[in-house]
Amino acid sequence: MYIILVYDIEEKRVGKMLKLCRQYLNWIQNSVFEGELSEVKLKELLMRSRAIMNMEKDSIIVFSSRQEKWLEKQVIGKEKNDLDNII
Amino acid sequence: MYIILVYDIEEKRVGKMLKLCRQYLNWIQNSVFEGELSEVKLKELLMRSRAIMNMEKDSIIVFSSRQEKWLEKQVIGKEKNDLDNII
Repeated sequence: MYIILVYDIEEKRVGKMLKLCRQYLNWIQNSVFEGELSEVKLKELLMRSRAIMNMEKDSIIVFSSRQEKWLEKQVIGKEKNDLDNII
Repeated sequence: MYIILVYDIEEKRVGKMLKLCRQYLNWIQNSVFEGELSEVKLKELLMRSRAIMNMEKDSIIVFSSRQEKWLEKQVIGKEKNDLDNII
């Protein structure tokens, strides 16, 4: 499945969440990730996310599409540079 | 078209951008919007966004899908409440 994940996580927890999401997906903007993920792997990611999140304050939205070609992407303004992906 | 828009805008410009995006889409998370928009309306929104953005510092990513049914959405944690949509 093709996944877009966006999170809104309080600052004290955001580092952990970023590290976790980057194990599964590509980081494309401050709080946005995308990539191909199986249903099993997505479930695993969400289970591990729940362990980090404060469910009253934080949120994650996951959009999934069976095929990447069903989604078009456009970036306006600053593109995330490769350096960010190495750090 | 079904649109997901996420932005990463510096604080001093974010209020303007929020106001603009809400004229076209539903606000579903801190910096995430979704909704049905024609190509013409999307172009208009992006043109008006560019006028607000600092292209070196800010970014917008737009995902579009011809049909909403091609996308599934899952929310984990705090759901944006209706009050946010009224303010």
